[in-house]
Formats: sequence, C-alpha cells, structure tokens
Amino acid sequence: MKDVHSQCPCMERCPLNRAMELIGGKWKIQIICSLNSNGKTRYNAIKGNLDGVSNNILAKALKELERDGFVTRTEYMEVPIRVEYDLTIKSKRLMPILEALSDWGEENI
Amino acid sequence: MKDVHSQCPCMERCPLNRAMELIGGKWKIQIICSLNSNGKTRYNAIKGNLDGVSNNILAKALKELERDGFVTRTEYMEVPIRVEYDLTIKSKRLMPILEALSDWGEENI
Repeated sequence: MKDVHSQCPCMERCPLNRAMELIGGKWKIQIICSLNSNGKTRYNAIKGNLDGVSNNILAKALKELERDGFVTRTEYMEVPIRVEYDLTIKSKRLMPILEALSDWGEENI
Repeated sequence: MKDVHSQCPCMERCPLNRAMELIGGKWKIQIICSLNSNGKTRYNAIKGNLDGVSNNILAKALKELERDGFVTRTEYMEVPIRVEYDLTIKSKRLMPILEALSDWGEENI
C-alpha cells in the first residue's frame, strides 16, 4: 500500500473521504451488497431485496451509482422493456475492502 | 473472511452499514487520519491539522468518536489542564482497511 497516508489528513484531496462520500449515501451500501450477492438484477428485484426503500430513493441512488461508475444499467429491447443492473469491475474490486470493513464492524461494534 | 455476506443486504443488522455510519460523520475520517499520522495529540493541534473545522463541530465529532470507542481522551492534572486524544486499539485495527479504501479511491475515483 502506497504510503501517502503520512500526509493525512490530506483534506479535499483525500481519496478515502471521497470514497466514503460516494458509497456512504443512503441505501448505496445495501444496493451494492444486494448486487454482489445476486449478480445482474432487475429494478423490482432490487427493490424487493431492500426492505422499506421508496421508488424515488432507489431510482435516485441507482442513478448516482451509475453516474459514479459503481453500477451498470442494461436495457433489453423487449416488450415490455427489460432493465437490469449489475456491479462494475470497479465495484467488484471494492468488495473485499467492504467485506473486511463489515468483518471489522462485526467484531468491534 | 467469514462468508456472512451471502445474505446481504442484511439491512438493520448490517455491520458494514453500521461501521460506515460511525466513521462517515463529517470530519471523523480526517480526525482518525490525523491521529493515525501524528499519534497522541492535543485538541488545538488536532484543530490546526483540520483546515476549516469549527470548535463546535470538532468538539462534537471528538465526543462521538470517544463515545463510539474510536478515540481516547486523557486529561493531565496540570495548570492549565492538558487534554490529549489518541486512537483506540479498535481504530488502529481499522486503519489497514481505511488505507486499502483510500488506495482504491485513488485508483478508481
């Protein structure tokens, strides 16, 4: 691991803070974990996996995750149209870190 | 790593979500990184390391980090009284995960 952390806190440039902001939004961790567990998933199935999420919140979170490069959205030209979401490579690289944070949380919180 | 993640999203019980909530609060990552870089530090020195933080916000964040077991606060009976903050063992165990997340952020954001 690069030793850039000796200059912390590196404030605005802080990649850790930026990462936390991007994945810290409401429901984003649950969406990422749901896609990690289930693979390519349709919108309604994602909604079914997330107890209590509203359509507006889920649609907004998915749009932001797609914009920020965590999720892909694929449309299939069928009738009715089929839309599926999946994790990007970037998110899949993130998963071992999130699982380590989850294990840390389980042991320390 | 325990394979509990196959049941994700595990919603309210989610240790990952809980961990993100505890360290995701404003300025908390910067405080943790500052203490990790500098070791035991006085309040004013922490404030000096964090460009733009207000006294209220810093005092509140430190109090929450202490309550949640991330930071120790030690008072020295001197005149004037001396107060120093440091990371707990629990936080020190968290650092490799935060550094991995930071490196991921640097490469992917």
